[in-house]
Amino acid sequence: MQLNDPAIWSARFRAVREHSLALAAPLSIEDCCAQSMPDASPIKWHLAHTTWFFETFILETMERDFAPFHPAFRVLFNSYYNGVGEKHPRPQRGLLTRPSLDEVRAYRADVDARIAALIGSGLDSDARARLATLLTLGMQHEQQHQELMLTDVKHLLAQNGLNPAYLDVPLPPAPAASALTWLPFDGGVTDVGYEGDGFCFDNELPRHRQYVEPFELASRLVTNGDYLAFIEAGGYRDPGLWLAEGWDWVCTQGLQQPLYWRRDDAGNWFEFTLTGLQPLDLNRPLTHVSLFEADAYAHWAGARLPTEAEWEHAVRVAGVVPGAPLQLPHPGGERLAEGLQEMFGHCWQWTSSSYTPYPGFKPAAGAIGEYNGKFMVNQYVLRGSSCATPAGHTRASYRNFFPAGARWQFTGIRLAR
Amino acid sequence: MQLNDPAIWSARFRAVREHSLALAAPLSIEDCCAQSMPDASPIKWHLAHTTWFFETFILETMERDFAPFHPAFRVLFNSYYNGVGEKHPRPQRGLLTRPSLDEVRAYRADVDARIAALIGSGLDSDARARLATLLTLGMQHEQQHQELMLTDVKHLLAQNGLNPAYLDVPLPPAPAASALTWLPFDGGVTDVGYEGDGFCFDNELPRHRQYVEPFELASRLVTNGDYLAFIEAGGYRDPGLWLAEGWDWVCTQGLQQPLYWRRDDAGNWFEFTLTGLQPLDLNRPLTHVSLFEADAYAHWAGARLPTEAEWEHAVRVAGVVPGAPLQLPHPGGERLAEGLQEMFGHCWQWTSSSYTPYPGFKPAAGAIGEYNGKFMVNQYVLRGSSCATPAGHTRASYRNFFPAGARWQFTGIRLAR
Amino acid sequence: MQLNDPAIWSARFRAVREHSLALAAPLSIEDCCAQSMPDASPIKWHLAHTTWFFETFILETMERDFAPFHPAFRVLFNSYYNGVGEKHPRPQRGLLTRPSLDEVRAYRADVDARIAALIGSGLDSDARARLATLLTLGMQHEQQHQELMLTDVKHLLAQNGLNPAYLDVPLPPAPAASALTWLPFDGGVTDVGYEGDGFCFDNELPRHRQYVEPFELASRLVTNGDYLAFIEAGGYRDPGLWLAEGWDWVCTQGLQQPLYWRRDDAGNWFEFTLTGLQPLDLNRPLTHVSLFEADAYAHWAGARLPTEAEWEHAVRVAGVVPGAPLQLPHPGGERLAEGLQEMFGHCWQWTSSSYTPYPGFKPAAGAIGEYNGKFMVNQYVLRGSSCATPAGHTRASYRNFFPAGARWQFTGIRLAR
Amino acid sequence: MQLNDPAIWSARFRAVREHSLALAAPLSIEDCCAQSMPDASPIKWHLAHTTWFFETFILETMERDFAPFHPAFRVLFNSYYNGVGEKHPRPQRGLLTRPSLDEVRAYRADVDARIAALIGSGLDSDARARLATLLTLGMQHEQQHQELMLTDVKHLLAQNGLNPAYLDVPLPPAPAASALTWLPFDGGVTDVGYEGDGFCFDNELPRHRQYVEPFELASRLVTNGDYLAFIEAGGYRDPGLWLAEGWDWVCTQGLQQPLYWRRDDAGNWFEFTLTGLQPLDLNRPLTHVSLFEADAYAHWAGARLPTEAEWEHAVRVAGVVPGAPLQLPHPGGERLAEGLQEMFGHCWQWTSSSYTPYPGFKPAAGAIGEYNGKFMVNQYVLRGSSCATPAGHTRASYRNFFPAGARWQFTGIRLAR
Repeated sequence: MQLNDPAIWSARFRAVREHSLALAAPLSIEDCCAQSMPDASPIKWHLAHTTWFFETFILETMERDFAPFHPAFRVLFNSYYNGVGEKHPRPQRGLLTRPSLDEVRAYRADVDARIAALIGSGLDSDARARLATLLTLGMQHEQQHQELMLTDVKHLLAQNGLNPAYLDVPLPPAPAASALTWLPFDGGVTDVGYEGDGFCFDNELPRHRQYVEPFELASRLVTNGDYLAFIEAGGYRDPGLWLAEGWDWVCTQGLQQPLYWRRDDAGNWFEFTLTGLQPLDLNRPLTHVSLFEADAYAHWAGARLPTEAEWEHAVRVAGVVPGAPLQLPHPGGERLAEGLQEMFGHCWQWTSSSYTPYPGFKPAAGAIGEYNGKFMVNQYVLRGSSCATPAGHTRASYRNFFPAGARWQFTGIRLAR
Repeated sequence: MQLNDPAIWSARFRAVREHSLALAAPLSIEDCCAQSMPDASPIKWHLAHTTWFFETFILETMERDFAPFHPAFRVLFNSYYNGVGEKHPRPQRGLLTRPSLDEVRAYRADVDARIAALIGSGLDSDARARLATLLTLGMQHEQQHQELMLTDVKHLLAQNGLNPAYLDVPLPPAPAASALTWLPFDGGVTDVGYEGDGFCFDNELPRHRQYVEPFELASRLVTNGDYLAFIEAGGYRDPGLWLAEGWDWVCTQGLQQPLYWRRDDAGNWFEFTLTGLQPLDLNRPLTHVSLFEADAYAHWAGARLPTEAEWEHAVRVAGVVPGAPLQLPHPGGERLAEGLQEMFGHCWQWTSSSYTPYPGFKPAAGAIGEYNGKFMVNQYVLRGSSCATPAGHTRASYRNFFPAGARWQFTGIRLAR
Repeated sequence: MQLNDPAIWSARFRAVREHSLALAAPLSIEDCCAQSMPDASPIKWHLAHTTWFFETFILETMERDFAPFHPAFRVLFNSYYNGVGEKHPRPQRGLLTRPSLDEVRAYRADVDARIAALIGSGLDSDARARLATLLTLGMQHEQQHQELMLTDVKHLLAQNGLNPAYLDVPLPPAPAASALTWLPFDGGVTDVGYEGDGFCFDNELPRHRQYVEPFELASRLVTNGDYLAFIEAGGYRDPGLWLAEGWDWVCTQGLQQPLYWRRDDAGNWFEFTLTGLQPLDLNRPLTHVSLFEADAYAHWAGARLPTEAEWEHAVRVAGVVPGAPLQLPHPGGERLAEGLQEMFGHCWQWTSSSYTPYPGFKPAAGAIGEYNGKFMVNQYVLRGSSCATPAGHTRASYRNFFPAGARWQFTGIRLAR
Repeated sequence: MQLNDPAIWSARFRAVREHSLALAAPLSIEDCCAQSMPDASPIKWHLAHTTWFFETFILETMERDFAPFHPAFRVLFNSYYNGVGEKHPRPQRGLLTRPSLDEVRAYRADVDARIAALIGSGLDSDARARLATLLTLGMQHEQQHQELMLTDVKHLLAQNGLNPAYLDVPLPPAPAASALTWLPFDGGVTDVGYEGDGFCFDNELPRHRQYVEPFELASRLVTNGDYLAFIEAGGYRDPGLWLAEGWDWVCTQGLQQPLYWRRDDAGNWFEFTLTGLQPLDLNRPLTHVSLFEADAYAHWAGARLPTEAEWEHAVRVAGVVPGAPLQLPHPGGERLAEGLQEMFGHCWQWTSSSYTPYPGFKPAAGAIGEYNGKFMVNQYVLRGSSCATPAGHTRASYRNFFPAGARWQFTGIRLAR
């Protein structure tokens, strides 16, 4: 990567930064402060932490006469970077009523201006290269948080008996789902991992070979209608369908349905969405299920989940490329094409692959190296992208990862066999 | 109680209601939304819940053609009144980013106007009496929440590494503490409980007799200086000084000091106050200790805690009456008089008495009867009042109560022997 | 107390010690080792700890050339005496498979022989007095553990799906319960606490005055039949009957009945007893309920629980004295006399009194002083004695105490009003 | 498999069954009853559960006029087979003081006799085949429990301050460890999974291809001496070495060393072993570490853990075969040969591979199918075998699995790079 044209880099940087503010725009000051669970963060915290990232990893290392915007922010808005020092406890991010949202906006504006100045300054070629690398990482990092802003605020609003909508717009009925068909793939020794000269995260490298047995992949995601049949067949009451740990998880929490499904006293099903509470649309892809639920459903359906190598192989062989983002941050609603559908842009797809380093994986040096490698235990890989993934943040080699019980992301089910 | 002069009742009501808003005035919208622990509530919730009380127990029963301001508020702002129906879960009050603070202010204004109209309407004498009773209870209830607003927001601000001040004013050094002397009381059969024709809570009745052995009471509260000597003598490391459950409490939480005391790396002591972080003032009364700490300190000092009967007896015999509230919501700072000092207005004083019904205690009928009686287990009585108690809310017979481990109230130590 | 006749003291000591072994006799080696919950202890531990008490507080202080039976036992069999040093963690007492039961019996025999030798040795009069005091305390202490041996092993056996009996004997049907009548007492200033020159625990002193309002006490304990009516009336589903903390306790644990009651699929009620699983006998006193259940039942029955002063006053005024122990360790089964019945020997009776020091209470010096005082918080007093209390361990002034949620002791309900 | 010669099958069966009793022989009745943590089971439970397996899966399906030895044992000694019905709660297995150890021995003898009779009876060829399959599975199942008997009882004895030895024999000093060298392997497409016509578990099938990049494997296990250097270099205090979840695990539990290492006040290191507390032998293989510790050590040593495919590939290429079991159930003590050493018989070796189904994996039908597949989430594969693995239970394709934090098995570290 080279920072050859400062104007282009400035524009890219500004676009990413403005998108975060745009995502916060429909929310009140209070919505931006609250934290609904330890796994989620307040919108204000996302806005500040992504700024801290640019301040700490770029300005602090490259700006002449660097002084922090506010010394305490180093602790308040550090996330998990042990190499950088102390951290505010994660479960208490919602207690940070100070700094105010206005002060965080001022923090963003200050850092943005200083980054813009740095981009435009006369850097030598080494520094330009280093800046390009760090800017790109910072923008990709902020895009990751943009997805979390939507999923975290959805979780927050879902706790409120008023069922408030993030976007006060109608969610139109989806067209009828296509029939699920099975697409065959030959397998063999295949290449896995990022290829190209653009950006990718360290966990997508090195590109390497894996042997894949022949397999079939479902043409589309599992729909709400498909999953409702599983529920009605007693899926949540049959231990034989579940992983042992999944069955404990179901029983301990008394679960009977996906995270945001609700049933009224008359037995009608609803789904809480970013457009508020909506009647359950049987034609839309199922979302907000855990790996445990995905695995039990697959078991019930006589299928299984794909491995991440199968998923990536299929995308490459079928030549699927990411399309434009959906209009609304909710999966489905489009007329489906032929072939391998909904691989990107609707729901992240659980794989049966645990999140492990590729052979020869090398994390970056320093605190930035904490980015990915240290999470490589007890997490499962999700492939594709979702309705909440920002434009330009999608790759066939992208490895998202969450624990097997996580449900608040836009997670869905793609079957394999 | 009689509602003879509507203008007087309207003025009283308005004064109480405006005081709540005045307490919230120094706070930001975000400060008013957050909840720092399950035991505390957000300021916005206090503002709404006190309004819900007037709406539910007065408007709903007395207003012609009553319609709720918002049907969902009945659930959102109910607290512990099982008789009224469903409740929003207490530990999740901080997630109620909607309704907004502005909407809650509008809710207050609406209910205030309707209560004022009811006061001024032509009620018959029975209704006037009933209204006076309920208005009085509602105002006393709101005054209780006014104290909690200060202690809850103090707890919230204390979680923030920025040490934000509720009031941005200096906390002047206190004059030297007077010498602690022992004041003797004869004891005997004494009357305990409220006497008079004003308001009191049901738990202060019926007035009844108790036998009290002769005892002595300390002339003043334990100071920070007194307690620092206990710490420096190893008080937090000697199991022999503690109740067994208190020792477990100390060890499990790794405690070494009162809730808001802090020590910097150089060994200097500070205290977080509503005016921000301040150097520890050894002349001010100690506050924010649990019953466990109070008991251990008393043990160490060769004394004990008073019973609530002793405390009330002493106030009556000595003729102590509540004075004007302090200028700042922090104990101490006044030149002390002779005799029995600081019984009111500085810190609530832990007694060794568990919170139990007085002989012949009768809770009120209906949901209002849930007010006090159902908490009469595993709680300990605190007597007096604190720097956070609003004017007019203090009585010699007042029974405050908290679990033995509670520290976020303005709780202090009065010794007896 | 004086140790004038060594033969008498030796006989008393031997009788107490042999009774513990007799209680263990029906049990297997395995029964004696297991611990069913942190609050309970294994039988083997009781046998060793009571021995440790004599070894530590008598032999170690009075025996010439004292050497411990086994140095590690000082840690393994210390209970809560912080003053004596380290302790084996209480919840892990059931993991002490070594020393074996045989070794513990040998430990008992060794200490017994040395105590007998000490009693018979030529002590001066001071030493004789000290020995008498400590021997008495040790025997009383062992008698307390004898009751716990029965309640702890009952709890253990109740966890086993085989419903094993401690005693393999029939539990005969009880005669019809007498009608519950209300016995009136005048009240006034009354003396509370132990009077006499025999033994009592420090918590029964000093004898002091209390003022008691006139009251009535139920003539007998609440029966299983009485309590079944409460259950069938929905007692466990009505929050209005319960203390707030009690209601949380019921809901969190999903409780619907007393600890050892069981209902088969056909709706028949059974009770697990020390003679195994038995059909529920409606005429026997209810037992194994918490203070929360006792309070809710009293509320439902239009009554209340007595205070400990009322209970002790009634026993004194009515002239009730403890009778001979029951044949079987289960309450009831006797034809009842007139007047105040079942005050002793059936079930401990919950009072509404929290466990607090009497005015002027002074714990003993040294580690022995840890006996009672340090538990005086968040515990409630039970009066009387139970079917598991050994002969000679019953006094009108006796203060037993447990937390409000404890159910594994023989606890029952005496109503007052 | 064919059951052609009943005498041979009878002898094999008897040998396995007698080995379990031999493992229990050094233990007291009490040792056999206690359970030190939910993950471990009492020895008595192991003895009964392995018997239940033969009774349920063989006698109940093949014996004419089958009647259970005791109907309640079906619940008490079922482990995780949901398909078989109700289960006694796992964390409470230590409370099963009944049936006694003697009764469990009688249960074993009864089932053994009936199995022997079945083997000798005139079965048709289908039934003989089915019996051979089930007998083999039952014997393999019992051998798995034989390893757990040793690790579970070690954990139990380690809780006891007396440091009791399972075997009262000396643990001789080990010869000096060989130098750690790196053995290179070419990789490529390799076959993984069981091959042959003997027994294997379902999780070792189907044999399939995997692509393995070239790698090197350490010639021997990490020793206590190696690991002590890691500790002394501050390994337990440097978050940069640990997986994020591992670091939380270390901090939450305050860990500073492997499970059974102890340091006295003078700084000397000891290790609790099945022969009691022993001075730490720096030449023996390190054991009882978690995956977290293994990964952090590898990170510190500039290496990594192998994948299970690498491990199995290396064993095949190098032609390593399992040797005879060690004399004592503790790793090390033998003079090491050249080449790839200690792959079997000392410590299970953590791999970086999560436990997932092989491509085309099919669990067996019915309750027996619950054996392996349902644990395939959040577990990591261990390869090789340990000093506690019984003779004849070792295969190159064997997949053992435990959660990343498990330490009570004989788990060690083999480095790769």
